Amino acid sequence: MTARITLLTDFGTADGYVAAVKGVAASLAPGVVVDDASHEIPRGDALAAALALERYWRFYPRHTVHCVVVDPGVGTARKAIAVEADDRFIVAPDNGVVTRVISEALSWRAVELIPERVPGSGVSATFDGRDLFAPAAAGLAQGRSLDSMGRPLVDVVRLDWPEPILEPTRIVGRVIQVDRFGNLVTNIPGDWIEDSDVVEVAGQAVPFWSSYGLVAPGALLALVNSDGRLEVAERDGSAADSLGVAPGASVRVMR
Amino acid sequence: MTARITLLTDFGTADGYVAAVKGVAASLAPGVVVDDASHEIPRGDALAAALALERYWRFYPRHTVHCVVVDPGVGTARKAIAVEADDRFIVAPDNGVVTRVISEALSWRAVELIPERVPGSGVSATFDGRDLFAPAAAGLAQGRSLDSMGRPLVDVVRLDWPEPILEPTRIVGRVIQVDRFGNLVTNIPGDWIEDSDVVEVAGQAVPFWSSYGLVAPGALLALVNSDGRLEVAERDGSAADSLGVAPGASVRVMR
Amino acid sequence: MTARITLLTDFGTADGYVAAVKGVAASLAPGVVVDDASHEIPRGDALAAALALERYWRFYPRHTVHCVVVDPGVGTARKAIAVEADDRFIVAPDNGVVTRVISEALSWRAVELIPERVPGSGVSATFDGRDLFAPAAAGLAQGRSLDSMGRPLVDVVRLDWPEPILEPTRIVGRVIQVDRFGNLVTNIPGDWIEDSDVVEVAGQAVPFWSSYGLVAPGALLALVNSDGRLEVAERDGSAADSLGVAPGASVRVMR
Repeated sequence: MTARITLLTDFGTADGYVAAVKGVAASLAPGVVVDDASHEIPRGDALAAALALERYWRFYPRHTVHCVVVDPGVGTARKAIAVEADDRFIVAPDNGVVTRVISEALSWRAVELIPERVPGSGVSATFDGRDLFAPAAAGLAQGRSLDSMGRPLVDVVRLDWPEPILEPTRIVGRVIQVDRFGNLVTNIPGDWIEDSDVVEVAGQAVPFWSSYGLVAPGALLALVNSDGRLEVAERDGSAADSLGVAPGASVRVMR
Repeated sequence: MTARITLLTDFGTADGYVAAVKGVAASLAPGVVVDDASHEIPRGDALAAALALERYWRFYPRHTVHCVVVDPGVGTARKAIAVEADDRFIVAPDNGVVTRVISEALSWRAVELIPERVPGSGVSATFDGRDLFAPAAAGLAQGRSLDSMGRPLVDVVRLDWPEPILEPTRIVGRVIQVDRFGNLVTNIPGDWIEDSDVVEVAGQAVPFWSSYGLVAPGALLALVNSDGRLEVAERDGSAADSLGVAPGASVRVMR
Repeated sequence: MTARITLLTDFGTADGYVAAVKGVAASLAPGVVVDDASHEIPRGDALAAALALERYWRFYPRHTVHCVVVDPGVGTARKAIAVEADDRFIVAPDNGVVTRVISEALSWRAVELIPERVPGSGVSATFDGRDLFAPAAAGLAQGRSLDSMGRPLVDVVRLDWPEPILEPTRIVGRVIQVDRFGNLVTNIPGDWIEDSDVVEVAGQAVPFWSSYGLVAPGALLALVNSDGRLEVAERDGSAADSLGVAPGASVRVMR
């Protein structure tokens, strides 16, 4: 079987750091395929990384190792962790980037990585991506166990995650992300929504439709997105721009 | 043999959607290698996708599957198609992105994908890239036939493509694209050009040379580009900026 | 063993040229894995390419082929070269992009590529990346020798590289690059630095610390970066912006 590692960072690619991480993985796990997830996460934005990771981690085959290096705390006392969740692995700083994975997983467990136990790990106070996370990911890709490289953790850091509120006649939630297309991703589960619901955001009522194609270009619509979340979008446009809305904004669903 | 899929989208990478597509392909076709072609096609720009695809589809080995997800019509009635062209495959929405491939191919045929026949396909009104195109690409990469996943089509959607006009003393064509370097790519075939021709664009005469290196930095030149098309370029600069020219502009060749 | 090629260009990805290079490599070396290093090198910037390459070339396994297509001189008389350095290969234009590799390598040798001897090479005056460098990289990935594809070179082009000066009470060096995070990378080796040193840049004294995490957000610090170089950084900010400093700026270390 092809061993596979995915890589999610905030490095950009132009400086060559991403390739150093990939090179270390290739050296320690010959034959591994490293898929770029993204290197364009906003610098140090653990929530953006958590949401991106949520969108792909479970679609990869079992035994895939997802390596996440969005790590504003490199060089501080923050832990480095490896997580096993529903037969996939995540190697990451313990800063909340796995928040959504462990929320979704049927079962998970985590260890704190101990550099001395991670074969091929090196010493650099500034580049754990290359010197610790890549070796740990390579080890997992080659079948090493979590326990051989770390000590069990009872819990990991989780990001604050606003929980939506379901009331008899309304739902109250928030915009948790504006994606590249200006769509407003909310924390409201799609299966809470009924067809006749009306969504209110920024003082405007937005009708609910099952698909972009059902409204005219330029029209706003609410729909359940590919992650199963309520989303407010503008066909062929940016709902965020049209509504002047940013992450954190309140969203209400009226029925 | 290594099964290989290429992926061309307008998703950007930061939101994690691209990785979801790659993960599905890796799950359904273990061992497949997915090459990123680009995720930076301008949003919904089928012509830009068609021109990018034209530049690489035939350089990949036989049996490669090129997956194109530039799909402003997702959720509408537009078809999803799979095309076999000169022993390569393209999986895409039926919106013209294969226009240049079928124009170049010695032979091609197409099917409309029927989701129920595509193993691993899922249901989402908003993310056919993950839920239909990736499974279809994985199926082709594993050797499934077009006919097993769809029904034959007599024709596919094609983009309007301005045809250049060849007259005894002149050629009349158009700028079809401004590339990242500001070069003006035209629809005029390079083999129509003679060494003594002079190219006129935006009221300016531009001499024809065989290579960038033959003119001084900052000078304009016309040349036959790596796609075999007449191109107007500025050495170490942007011809588009210097001439104030955008796609659609008229280009004449005088002899 | 998996044959592996890395690819570093200034092409961007949107036009499809990068995929053409990857497709040629995949056609000529079936089964090869092509890792994207970066396609976001500033256009024609051989120094940026040299510094990026320095960061990853030696971390890849032996026999990896690093293909670099940052080539403002395409179509001029500049040579195309293949270099063997510490059991890795580099295929590139002879414009200095290998400067740092051959400075670091314990041993290296180079040949000038002769297109007629490179299997699969083609003819295009404008796209050596696809028509010469990719075929040469594929040949090396498949085990062909340097000598079978070129003629030995006594030396290659090297970029001017400012050498730092070590005096009894101070070190004088320069900023050689501003990275994506606004960190000022200098040409001063980290092992010249002592803990009590103070770094001066743009008239400001910056204390030396072993790690970002030891200072407050917004504070400036000097540290030894992951490449082993003295670097001036701002925690959670851009030292380049705060200090108004660009590449070439003078850096002094006082003790």
